[in-house]
Amino acid sequence: MKHISITTDFGSGVGSMRGVIWNIAPDAMISDIYSAIPPQDVNFAAWYIDHEVWYFPPGTIHIVVVDPGVGTSRRPIAAQIGEHYFVGPDNGVFSKLYQKAEKKGWPIRIFHTNKPEYWWQLESNIFHGRDIFSPIAAHLAAGVPIEELGEEIHDEVRIPVPEATFNEKGADGEVILIYEYLGNITVNIHRTDLPDDFDQTKAKLQIRGRTITGVRDTFGEAKTGELIALYGTAGYIIVAVVNGSAYKLLKPEIGDKVKLTY
Amino acid sequence: MKHISITTDFGSGVGSMRGVIWNIAPDAMISDIYSAIPPQDVNFAAWYIDHEVWYFPPGTIHIVVVDPGVGTSRRPIAAQIGEHYFVGPDNGVFSKLYQKAEKKGWPIRIFHTNKPEYWWQLESNIFHGRDIFSPIAAHLAAGVPIEELGEEIHDEVRIPVPEATFNEKGADGEVILIYEYLGNITVNIHRTDLPDDFDQTKAKLQIRGRTITGVRDTFGEAKTGELIALYGTAGYIIVAVVNGSAYKLLKPEIGDKVKLTY
Amino acid sequence: MKHISITTDFGSGVGSMRGVIWNIAPDAMISDIYSAIPPQDVNFAAWYIDHEVWYFPPGTIHIVVVDPGVGTSRRPIAAQIGEHYFVGPDNGVFSKLYQKAEKKGWPIRIFHTNKPEYWWQLESNIFHGRDIFSPIAAHLAAGVPIEELGEEIHDEVRIPVPEATFNEKGADGEVILIYEYLGNITVNIHRTDLPDDFDQTKAKLQIRGRTITGVRDTFGEAKTGELIALYGTAGYIIVAVVNGSAYKLLKPEIGDKVKLTY
Repeated sequence: MKHISITTDFGSGVGSMRGVIWNIAPDAMISDIYSAIPPQDVNFAAWYIDHEVWYFPPGTIHIVVVDPGVGTSRRPIAAQIGEHYFVGPDNGVFSKLYQKAEKKGWPIRIFHTNKPEYWWQLESNIFHGRDIFSPIAAHLAAGVPIEELGEEIHDEVRIPVPEATFNEKGADGEVILIYEYLGNITVNIHRTDLPDDFDQTKAKLQIRGRTITGVRDTFGEAKTGELIALYGTAGYIIVAVVNGSAYKLLKPEIGDKVKLTY
Repeated sequence: MKHISITTDFGSGVGSMRGVIWNIAPDAMISDIYSAIPPQDVNFAAWYIDHEVWYFPPGTIHIVVVDPGVGTSRRPIAAQIGEHYFVGPDNGVFSKLYQKAEKKGWPIRIFHTNKPEYWWQLESNIFHGRDIFSPIAAHLAAGVPIEELGEEIHDEVRIPVPEATFNEKGADGEVILIYEYLGNITVNIHRTDLPDDFDQTKAKLQIRGRTITGVRDTFGEAKTGELIALYGTAGYIIVAVVNGSAYKLLKPEIGDKVKLTY
Repeated sequence: MKHISITTDFGSGVGSMRGVIWNIAPDAMISDIYSAIPPQDVNFAAWYIDHEVWYFPPGTIHIVVVDPGVGTSRRPIAAQIGEHYFVGPDNGVFSKLYQKAEKKGWPIRIFHTNKPEYWWQLESNIFHGRDIFSPIAAHLAAGVPIEELGEEIHDEVRIPVPEATFNEKGADGEVILIYEYLGNITVNIHRTDLPDDFDQTKAKLQIRGRTITGVRDTFGEAKTGELIALYGTAGYIIVAVVNGSAYKLLKPEIGDKVKLTY
């Protein structure tokens, strides 16, 4: 257990988090997964990390800091999910991981990391990423058993993570993220969920009464003003208007049903 | 001494610096602290690094490349400050660290790293971050004593780093950075300097005859055109106009006095 | 062979690539070189990596993922060039490295990495950076001989990488990259190719019938609308119009001759 990953909404890496980790676990090998989660978007992070963390070796410790509730009573937690460890806020950001583990029969243990002796020396204002999550992750890396770091809980916070269903002819999914400013809409169908013989050019996506043909790789493949489907940077299918706003055009809501036919 | 941090104004990490380091110290564990210091802003970097470097373990070697004078006669230096090591240009970028060390009684030793045998093989144009600072840091990591790397100096360059003063009722500080383009003003009061019971919503900041109530976390909490105080990305309080310019509104100058009351 | 570098056009680091590597080579020390190669610009990447990779220690394994042909029949390859190893698509991205090696008499061996037992478990859609290049690099790092990873080839793809010629009075080069959107033009004269006594203020660059005096460090040194030469972020001389478009002004084509006089 000496590999640590970091996922945040900070926009860039945070040196002091790595510094704190290396005080406690000098040999920890640390990798950013992504530092550009949309700010405070717990829902996005919950979906995003599920497609990255399992590529790391068993025993890896994953820190996730997307934490709009920092400074409130929300609990800091450490969780064992399958053979991986997770440290972050108890705000539902690990919901999709819990769901996957339950479906696969993997073990889940969650601990409220409420023992300050395992935190970093706290300055007046607490930056939990640096002062609680990083040292907790580092103590795990240094060999402290997870059950030593806090008291086990069974009432962890979960947010809805509706999953698409797949059959031979297509998938039924729904709108999970709406970017009003950028104008894009994300649906819960991920490119890695699609079949081997998925034909990107012929697939049809139905959303709010429209039918879009093809799933593109880039905006550049279509004309200005065109309503298109394409793979977003996180791997999910997104719906967009080239140089425009699918949000304004379609006025979607979270949970709107979509159907992909292939 | 095998942890190395890198802080630059390059906008992204620099692979060749890491490459050079690993030639000399193959086991060095390297972390970026920040690569988006405003270009050539020595003053900003001097303030910024003080809030990051001390979180690293004693013995860490910190490379700082914010170096408008590269190619001139300004000296490359290596410094021991307290239990940490620093490598960079002698342009004042370490001034706040010197000041802190003197206040705390920590040792300071500074060396002009003028021995080319500890530099990297130089190409025609010198990129000091890669060709001097990185190999010097790597030699330190590999165990070369700092006094072997150059001759000790006592006339290091310093820039003014005026500090705010704090009492039970508030703080007296001053304007330290002005972003004409973005329109923001930074003052030398850092969120980690504030008391435990600091009430973010009630604090009042006086600047150039105006009084601002509250220190916000984000721009989104206020209306377009409003003059606000908030925590900047480096942790210092900044003054801004939402979607506008506090620079144009207040016409501040470096050194303007500010008063925070809480 | 435990250092690995990563160069991509993804815009940010990719956690899952590091995760896959650490499954196979848990001790591999991984550094991004650059993740902002212009999307799918194999030509740019071919030039860029030549100025970074050789700073790494002999034995370093360099992954390059600039891969517009992913999913087509283009081959994944691993190459030994001099004392370094390279993993990526056989699309010409290593052309400048081959050229340099031939000029210097370094060994070149290239293998088509077509053995799935050395790939990562493949999901339905293949992301070669994560599923082929990363595990191949990791197996190299873990000690698998390169000749074990695939069958040797001698018909590798190459793209033209025209080199400037230098003499005492100047250099003859040509246009290698044109950024229509940004309006900038890159020529194949790199700052590290210039002589020790190169006078940046007096040099003259001739391009498409114009003569530009001086090679600047930044745009800020010139007036809006001025046609200037300056060092681009990759170290090559670029031609630009301040707040305008050298592309629109000069209507250049790839291969246009340029002359630098110093």
